[in-house]
Amino acid sequence: MPKITFMPQNIIIEAKTASPLLEAARLAGVSVETPCGGKGVCRKCLVKIISGKVDVKSGSYKNSKENHVLICQTNILDEDVTIEILSGLYGEEGKFDDVFDVKKINDFTVNPIVKQIDLQILKAAPLDGLSDFDRLEKSLKLKFSEIIKSIKIPLEILKTLPLKLRENDGKVKMLYYFENENLNIIDIINIENTNIYGIAIDIGTTTVTVWIVDLITGKIISRKTDYNAQIECGLDIITRINYAQKNLNELQSRILNTINNLIKIISDENKININRIYYASIAGNTTMIHLFLGIIPEYIRLDPYTPAVFKIPVFNAFETGIKININAPVKFAPSVGSYVGGDITAGALCTPLCEDKNEIILFLDIGTNGEILLGNNEFILGCACSAGPAFEGGGIEFGMRASQGAIDCFNISETGEITIKTIDNAPPVGICGSGIISIVGEMFEKNIIDAAGRFTDKFPDKIKKDKKPYKFYITENITISEADIDNLIRAKGAIFSACRTLLNNMGLAFDDIDKIYIAGGFGRYLNIENAKTIGLLPNIPPEKIIYLGNTSIIGAYQILLSEEKGKKVMEIADRITYIDLSNESGYMDEYLGALFLPHTDSDLFK
Amino acid sequence: MPKITFMPQNIIIEAKTASPLLEAARLAGVSVETPCGGKGVCRKCLVKIISGKVDVKSGSYKNSKENHVLICQTNILDEDVTIEILSGLYGEEGKFDDVFDVKKINDFTVNPIVKQIDLQILKAAPLDGLSDFDRLEKSLKLKFSEIIKSIKIPLEILKTLPLKLRENDGKVKMLYYFENENLNIIDIINIENTNIYGIAIDIGTTTVTVWIVDLITGKIISRKTDYNAQIECGLDIITRINYAQKNLNELQSRILNTINNLIKIISDENKININRIYYASIAGNTTMIHLFLGIIPEYIRLDPYTPAVFKIPVFNAFETGIKININAPVKFAPSVGSYVGGDITAGALCTPLCEDKNEIILFLDIGTNGEILLGNNEFILGCACSAGPAFEGGGIEFGMRASQGAIDCFNISETGEITIKTIDNAPPVGICGSGIISIVGEMFEKNIIDAAGRFTDKFPDKIKKDKKPYKFYITENITISEADIDNLIRAKGAIFSACRTLLNNMGLAFDDIDKIYIAGGFGRYLNIENAKTIGLLPNIPPEKIIYLGNTSIIGAYQILLSEEKGKKVMEIADRITYIDLSNESGYMDEYLGALFLPHTDSDLFK
Repeated sequence: MPKITFMPQNIIIEAKTASPLLEAARLAGVSVETPCGGKGVCRKCLVKIISGKVDVKSGSYKNSKENHVLICQTNILDEDVTIEILSGLYGEEGKFDDVFDVKKINDFTVNPIVKQIDLQILKAAPLDGLSDFDRLEKSLKLKFSEIIKSIKIPLEILKTLPLKLRENDGKVKMLYYFENENLNIIDIINIENTNIYGIAIDIGTTTVTVWIVDLITGKIISRKTDYNAQIECGLDIITRINYAQKNLNELQSRILNTINNLIKIISDENKININRIYYASIAGNTTMIHLFLGIIPEYIRLDPYTPAVFKIPVFNAFETGIKININAPVKFAPSVGSYVGGDITAGALCTPLCEDKNEIILFLDIGTNGEILLGNNEFILGCACSAGPAFEGGGIEFGMRASQGAIDCFNISETGEITIKTIDNAPPVGICGSGIISIVGEMFEKNIIDAAGRFTDKFPDKIKKDKKPYKFYITENITISEADIDNLIRAKGAIFSACRTLLNNMGLAFDDIDKIYIAGGFGRYLNIENAKTIGLLPNIPPEKIIYLGNTSIIGAYQILLSEEKGKKVMEIADRITYIDLSNESGYMDEYLGALFLPHTDSDLFK
Repeated sequence: MPKITFMPQNIIIEAKTASPLLEAARLAGVSVETPCGGKGVCRKCLVKIISGKVDVKSGSYKNSKENHVLICQTNILDEDVTIEILSGLYGEEGKFDDVFDVKKINDFTVNPIVKQIDLQILKAAPLDGLSDFDRLEKSLKLKFSEIIKSIKIPLEILKTLPLKLRENDGKVKMLYYFENENLNIIDIINIENTNIYGIAIDIGTTTVTVWIVDLITGKIISRKTDYNAQIECGLDIITRINYAQKNLNELQSRILNTINNLIKIISDENKININRIYYASIAGNTTMIHLFLGIIPEYIRLDPYTPAVFKIPVFNAFETGIKININAPVKFAPSVGSYVGGDITAGALCTPLCEDKNEIILFLDIGTNGEILLGNNEFILGCACSAGPAFEGGGIEFGMRASQGAIDCFNISETGEITIKTIDNAPPVGICGSGIISIVGEMFEKNIIDAAGRFTDKFPDKIKKDKKPYKFYITENITISEADIDNLIRAKGAIFSACRTLLNNMGLAFDDIDKIYIAGGFGRYLNIENAKTIGLLPNIPPEKIIYLGNTSIIGAYQILLSEEKGKKVMEIADRITYIDLSNESGYMDEYLGALFLPHTDSDLFK
């Protein structure tokens, strides 16, 4: 049977001759996004054939120069093949949008709760009545000025304690953290080990990001992002919760596989011993955290929308299934509502909401769900709205993530000449979220579509009207349909009306906002003028709008490295008043008003 | 391949035709004691053939009436066989010596640290900002008057909390225990569950006893004892510690198998759901506890004799590998020295040492190791001596445990007529510890042996002198040799001289002792006059000598059921001054003096 090697994961599997390559990928546990259902349309499953020959269905998309094929249109021949998943794993090269100025977010003292200390243990003496553990305890009580109510030692450490205390004349390095006044031992190691690591994890509905960090200097060793392997079980949160009714274990192991795979790749690449990763912090929305821990998520989506838990207790890595040092504590950014999760509380750490400032800010984290905070040092309101996947390229026929070849900018002259820009200037393969905003904004400005998003009679030769939905040709192969435009309008309408509802709640208007902070993958390539044109953002001065990147992972990173930030995120969570939009009487009117380009109340966009 | 069924464990294994039955037993993980190395001499591997035919080596011992054969002398034929291990598992029938008056040891209030409480959880309400866990926490804080610093919920409970809180209108039963001011949740179950259980375990070097107990009434549901499956890796502690250098994992899984097998048998027999066993307490000597937890035991036996740990922290059942409710706390009786372990501190709970009495007592726990306490409410000295296995029938050619068919009493008239008594009046198959004491005492009294344990010229026809060691015929098949007698003298000499050393340390004599408490398997059938004759016990009035049975398991049972006894055993451990006999200058003289019958200083036995 031919061997199929999947890169960059380096997973090898034996597959049947003439079987679909997609099937082999699934058997290998390699995550491949196929939102079009394997029909060869969405082109999200693009892979590079590194070696070996495969059988590509005639007529399906391929790029012979780059050796790119669609995995869903390819069968295995009777020979070994090595392929590289292009849509899957991305590294520091920035194909995912977590690239930003690290120094800017690093304005805090590195002071993680997990610490190390070098100890000189008392020598064992005849008839001193002290066991090894007693000697350790005595040394600790001498060394620490803090009150120590109890010392907790994991059984795994106790098992080899006799050797540890004897191998270097009683000199050891201890990893530990305090919880209340209890000293928790994480590990006891040779003093010659100098490198200790932590890991920050952002569990998104669609993507998962892992940062491995030096716990002493705070330096980011490596960052990687991959698709959440749960996406094969449903693209949005509600589908996942439904899927969990019968398959909670599967969802849990899928996200664990994604995370552990990323950890393995980073640690292999950087020659990091995973047992030296002593602390993990995790940010994710309420549902993702429930699924990650295998907690029944059912009641998140059922009235009265009560999750099992908002503030997850500290568990150790072994309990959670993350493959780092088994005794490493795992800390979670707290949730405040069914749809306002740890991703946004962690994200708030990147905004002035964690400072004592009275300027009013709006914090938008736009992904599959839009999560929004409005507040200052006196109040914080939070809400969530379902934007749908349009901003991430989902629900759009040629939609794709903001990666190589994605159209992110579109212009059309009055004579109908189209100019496009793609990410990395690669040949266009689809349209990312900011591209859709650009296209819709430009088409609306040039009267190609009307305020309801329907094609006018301009440029009829560029519009395919043989059946609904009508489609407009962006390139020879890539189109945007009225259905796509409708998806975008509903998405921007959901976000905009949610912001308005929060403002109304406080008797505020957009003009009262001092700053708008935008987080989430799509924002990086976002043209703010286009966003205003379609009515996603109000007409406020551009200098008031600040793009922050993936604030969920940046917040998780801050929690990891700073005990103070860890306390701060808890305070922020306690301060947020959760607004349930489905129970807000004004929201539906706001939403209906926002289902036009830019809005029924065009005064808002003057 | 023929199927071999081992009863009462009901373990079935396929074995090769013509292969040794002993090999099949080992492959099946069925513990069979073969101290003679499978030579057919010790008769400790006696089994009953319940169905099927086997091939017994010609000339080897068998009892055709009872269908008893020696497992080490038997090969499998080409047919299925069902056999019952006679030497292995014993139940309440009392073949092992843990039978005693339960009421007498039950003189404490049943108040275990693990408790249950029925709760009515607040209903989930829209926008109350409370997760399920928050609602539980709120209900707990209302219900408890104690200070609750933190509430710890195991992940496994959190996973299904949403269902638990909703299935019965918010009525639940919670199992929990406090540790400092932290509330530890063990389980949340349906209020209709009324039975909750605990388990007391005595891990002996040779045998393991498990009691399953009703945690509310304190009633003992069932008691079972089995051989410690580690005995195949060495009979005594030192051999086990040496074996652990390369095979610690094996030793750990052997003892876990023994314990889990006993739990399974008891819970099956009594239809107890093992998930309803919510608490375990364990007593065992220092080495056994190290091996049970997989802790390196090496330094217990190396100068300066420093174990890894005396006071084991509370672990949960999952961590320890005991198959009961995974979150059940497991508590250990504390050790005080390399050879004065939790078995003796737990045992001390059965003596006036745990009361505020000034009467001086001597507490002897005699097994493979002799552990001795001397003290009252003002002082406690503790020491251990290696008695060897003689008192348990080991190291004696025809020695056996105090079970059916063991000779436990021997008389010989001046004309040489021998009268014996056996346990259960069964046909004699060997000699148990008390039997050896009886035989040696009687032979010394009747001048058949001298003070050094050598045969005199009395009854020469009963003595086989063709080669050393000379042997005396007790029955046609069962003999006692000078080597056997020598073993016994060394064993009693070790115990007696240890007692004397402790007394000397305090400037006391035997006459100062108010009571002698004897624990350990061999004591049950012990004739005190015989014990005095050989010099094991001093000549003090019989009413001062009290036999207590297996105090290790009784102590574990008390710790299980009583928070107060749990604290008491810690106090006792703290009060014990450990005397290391190998460092005591006077001990060797005492020992040498005790290597005669009854003693070189016969004034002690007047």
